[in-house]
Amino acid sequence: ALGPERRSRVISPEEKEIIAYHEAGHALVARMCEHAKPVYKVSIIPRGMAGGYVLSFPEDDRMFMRASEFMDEIAVALGGRVAEEVVFGDVTDGAVNDLEQATKMARAMVTRYGMSERLGPMVFGKRDELIFLGKEIGEQRNYSEETAELIDREVQRIVHEAYEKARSIITRYRHKLDEIAQRLIQQETIEAAEFEAMFQDLDAAPKKPAPVPV
Amino acid sequence: ALGPERRSRVISPEEKEIIAYHEAGHALVARMCEHAKPVYKVSIIPRGMAGGYVLSFPEDDRMFMRASEFMDEIAVALGGRVAEEVVFGDVTDGAVNDLEQATKMARAMVTRYGMSERLGPMVFGKRDELIFLGKEIGEQRNYSEETAELIDREVQRIVHEAYEKARSIITRYRHKLDEIAQRLIQQETIEAAEFEAMFQDLDAAPKKPAPVPV
Amino acid sequence: ALGPERRSRVISPEEKEIIAYHEAGHALVARMCEHAKPVYKVSIIPRGMAGGYVLSFPEDDRMFMRASEFMDEIAVALGGRVAEEVVFGDVTDGAVNDLEQATKMARAMVTRYGMSERLGPMVFGKRDELIFLGKEIGEQRNYSEETAELIDREVQRIVHEAYEKARSIITRYRHKLDEIAQRLIQQETIEAAEFEAMFQDLDAAPKKPAPVPV
Amino acid sequence: ALGPERRSRVISPEEKEIIAYHEAGHALVARMCEHAKPVYKVSIIPRGMAGGYVLSFPEDDRMFMRASEFMDEIAVALGGRVAEEVVFGDVTDGAVNDLEQATKMARAMVTRYGMSERLGPMVFGKRDELIFLGKEIGEQRNYSEETAELIDREVQRIVHEAYEKARSIITRYRHKLDEIAQRLIQQETIEAAEFEAMFQDLDAAPKKPAPVPV
Amino acid sequence: ALGPERRSRVISPEEKEIIAYHEAGHALVARMCEHAKPVYKVSIIPRGMAGGYVLSFPEDDRMFMRASEFMDEIAVALGGRVAEEVVFGDVTDGAVNDLEQATKMARAMVTRYGMSERLGPMVFGKRDELIFLGKEIGEQRNYSEETAELIDREVQRIVHEAYEKARSIITRYRHKLDEIAQRLIQQETIEAAEFEAMFQDLDAAPKKPAPVPV
Amino acid sequence: ALGPERRSRVISPEEKEIIAYHEAGHALVARMCEHAKPVYKVSIIPRGMAGGYVLSFPEDDRMFMRASEFMDEIAVALGGRVAEEVVFGDVTDGAVNDLEQATKMARAMVTRYGMSERLGPMVFGKRDELIFLGKEIGEQRNYSEETAELIDREVQRIVHEAYEKARSIITRYRHKLDEIAQRLIQQETIEAAEFEAMFQDLDAAPKKPAPVPV
Repeated sequence: ALGPERRSRVISPEEKEIIAYHEAGHALVARMCEHAKPVYKVSIIPRGMAGGYVLSFPEDDRMFMRASEFMDEIAVALGGRVAEEVVFGDVTDGAVNDLEQATKMARAMVTRYGMSERLGPMVFGKRDELIFLGKEIGEQRNYSEETAELIDREVQRIVHEAYEKARSIITRYRHKLDEIAQRLIQQETIEAAEFEAMFQDLDAAPKKPAPVPV
Repeated sequence: ALGPERRSRVISPEEKEIIAYHEAGHALVARMCEHAKPVYKVSIIPRGMAGGYVLSFPEDDRMFMRASEFMDEIAVALGGRVAEEVVFGDVTDGAVNDLEQATKMARAMVTRYGMSERLGPMVFGKRDELIFLGKEIGEQRNYSEETAELIDREVQRIVHEAYEKARSIITRYRHKLDEIAQRLIQQETIEAAEFEAMFQDLDAAPKKPAPVPV
Repeated sequence: ALGPERRSRVISPEEKEIIAYHEAGHALVARMCEHAKPVYKVSIIPRGMAGGYVLSFPEDDRMFMRASEFMDEIAVALGGRVAEEVVFGDVTDGAVNDLEQATKMARAMVTRYGMSERLGPMVFGKRDELIFLGKEIGEQRNYSEETAELIDREVQRIVHEAYEKARSIITRYRHKLDEIAQRLIQQETIEAAEFEAMFQDLDAAPKKPAPVPV
Repeated sequence: ALGPERRSRVISPEEKEIIAYHEAGHALVARMCEHAKPVYKVSIIPRGMAGGYVLSFPEDDRMFMRASEFMDEIAVALGGRVAEEVVFGDVTDGAVNDLEQATKMARAMVTRYGMSERLGPMVFGKRDELIFLGKEIGEQRNYSEETAELIDREVQRIVHEAYEKARSIITRYRHKLDEIAQRLIQQETIEAAEFEAMFQDLDAAPKKPAPVPV
Repeated sequence: ALGPERRSRVISPEEKEIIAYHEAGHALVARMCEHAKPVYKVSIIPRGMAGGYVLSFPEDDRMFMRASEFMDEIAVALGGRVAEEVVFGDVTDGAVNDLEQATKMARAMVTRYGMSERLGPMVFGKRDELIFLGKEIGEQRNYSEETAELIDREVQRIVHEAYEKARSIITRYRHKLDEIAQRLIQQETIEAAEFEAMFQDLDAAPKKPAPVPV
Repeated sequence: ALGPERRSRVISPEEKEIIAYHEAGHALVARMCEHAKPVYKVSIIPRGMAGGYVLSFPEDDRMFMRASEFMDEIAVALGGRVAEEVVFGDVTDGAVNDLEQATKMARAMVTRYGMSERLGPMVFGKRDELIFLGKEIGEQRNYSEETAELIDREVQRIVHEAYEKARSIITRYRHKLDEIAQRLIQQETIEAAEFEAMFQDLDAAPKKPAPVPV
């Protein structure tokens, strides 16, 4: 999703196309990843103060997040940037919030949830300062440079794998990406049922449970 | 034990199964480790504000903790995560508190209690800032990078050994794990005597003193 | 653009020549870079308190900045320094603000916008402390020395590439640089239309949209 | 001496045995080290709030501490831990205060008193922040990583040597250790004269001046 | 220039000689460096509270400082120390302010003004904290150890080159140094015109514009 | 000089001997070093609150300190420790103030006064925080690890050289050391004239100017 810092003014056709492809990228990757949350609504209408043009999901009510789910959500977060790269051959600074979210999830997998085999079932950094969800006052590092390097490499590996997954989906289903983006340019919003219907001709797509409207 | 941050709502059957196996993992490892505290009660009912679904032990009144006891308690702390991995082939972010506790104990063995042969009978880090039980304001590091690396490797080695111990117990007594988890799903709580009775057919299990009810 | 700290007094002919060539450098590079913003006005008259002798652009209303645009804007920022070096064979401390801006953009490409292939689509440093546009309270580093080195090398590579681009433009169109500088010395300001007219004899120059007057 | 954090309750026979051997370890090493302070009283009765079960010495009124005295006092501080290891083949977290004291003395020898030949007659770290006896606000490091490594290795070497000295004494005079520990279990306290009398059959022991009662 | 911390009392003949040669060193290097500011007055009379025995220049009104001017001003700053070394074969702690100024200029060339080819046209360190002229609250480092090493080596190279330039001037024109120093010992102050006249017999000296009296 | 923290009580003959040899060590090295300040008075009587048993010099009124004088003063500061080592074969913690002073002077030579050839005529560390004489609030490091290592090695080299100089003097004039120490034990104080007279039989000693009584 593109950042909230963007100015509120009439957007140009060129900008609208970028936004549409960016959001289509998120939506397509979410639809094709087995462990990602189902797509509830796709839109390029800015949503309030907090977010810009956000892909809407039903509110997250999962009790746990599995490692496989983290991997897929990271791929979804990177889907917008991948779409820009594949379609326009250039990338914008609009993906900054997505990159932050992806980095944060990958980092938490390694340092908080013990999901890196290389680093093991351990926690890195001080607890009081590292409240993952909520306000982060600052993490106190209590490990060596060597461990810091291992963490960085693992985080980078995870982000890289997720990026490659997003890229392979977007490359393979490029026609679907165009279809979603064009429809967003025309009608600005695609509801869940309409979105799901766009994938009925695909046999390979995972059958996701129909999301319950809020 | 699963973290307290989880929302209070009706849990799904799938979630209940994860919780049951997670707690069964703790309980089974505790039962089979010679130096771990005896199991007092196993439950999947959330306990107050502080903890989620905690495996209950009688309150700790040990005057000293031996190195062998630390090793076993770390294995117990990791038992929930191991059970998830063995049963579901995937792990969740629900074990974060367990991982923190295991890391903290392993770190204290090395830096506070002089229990690492590699680093010797010494203390690392400043005392005033490192009150192990109680509020941790922040540890001041007074050693070199080289020493920090040795500490990290020792802590990792200890956690790894304890994890392997937990895994070997859970793999060997997988049928017991299933038995405990299924009973937890049905009746939500297993009292100490009932729990102990479940192990009477096992000759190999250590004979633990019957825990005194509080 | 030369810094605002310079004293307000009558400038010497020698100083005027330096300023004119410095500003001409910015303007020429901006004119010849395909992805740089069009030149609106070039002037060597100090502008208010905030800036010294600034090359004026129409106010930036771009929603996104592409990677290619960042590269060109960095080259434009360095154009003044390059002109000094090429024309006088010596450089002054007057380019400090330009260097800061170039460094900041290059650093943001790598650490905020995921535009370095080597480091990948990730964010480096803590968010709260790293508000790029606006007041910077200080960035908290949450990565290893190894990553810090990779970041430094990427930032240096980007600045180096942009510098070489600026140098190649200024060397190739040296006669245009002299023309702009001489006209600035004579009339102090060149408006957009007049500036654009100076390039009509060049076939190789990119055709830029005529900037709209504010 | 075992730490003050221990709960005040009736101790078990097993705990009493650990405490007795721990204190006997301190006392035996103190008796056999030529440069250690003479033993004034040995006791397993907890002493006030400040200390647990402390081996009592006459109050220290030495004007200077020699390097050889530091070495022996470190060995004495580690004597309790060594006794645990030799007798029970396992160690407890009860020696944390001893380890802290030993580390502090070894560190001061190297960084404050210039007693390490490798590092020379110099002081390391800032003075105002490093008041050795009294409240330590925090030491400011003013040396390189390389020096920090040398300091760590020297401190570790000193603690290791002292530990080996304590172990060799306790292994050689194991029967005396048992004798002291058993008497402590029976009568809880051994006064100086009685303690000295227990060593009259040993020819090898250094002849220590009879401590003056306070 | 010798530091302001020196006590106000009658100075000894030996001290006067040191001061005279020190100031003569500054003056001679300033006279012989093509890009250094012209010498306005040389004196060994302490000037107010702020400075000790300072070599006076007309107030600096340069709009820009060129790289070549920085190099020469660093050589001038080091001229006092070089004179001590060449004449007395020993150096004093009186040059501390000169060394500080030389280091600061060399560091700014590398980290602020992009004047090191090795490090390129970039800025190193955070801006808000690094106000070069004015109050320095503290520079925040935002680069890697590797970059810090490159900066240190460049700063050291620059200072070394400037020192060698100062030494070669003072060695070559040793007779002029003696002449200036002796005159300072006799009459304590040399005005600009008198100073310039002392160099009329030298063909090799750069022809400097006569400084305008303030 | 032995530290001020020592308790005011009647000292034992053994302690008096240590103090006497320690002070004699300072005095002898001061007498034999060409560039050290002349000896004004030697005493083992504690002087007020501030110092313990200090070797008294006339108040320092030197305007400058030369590099050669720094070297000799460091040797003098270490003379007490060397005497302990040579005479008793063991060293005490009583020299802590001497070691601090020696380290501080050696460090200032390298980082403040540009007196290390290896590091050159530069200043290391921020000025505001490094007021050498007076209250030290804390030095801010603005150099790389590599430079920090070079500084440490130079400081260590200087202290080592000065220590060897002190040792060679004390070994060569051991009989003088004994003579001074014995006289101090008998009469507690030696005035300047009496002290100088003790060296009249030595031809090799530098002829020092008779110190003026205050």
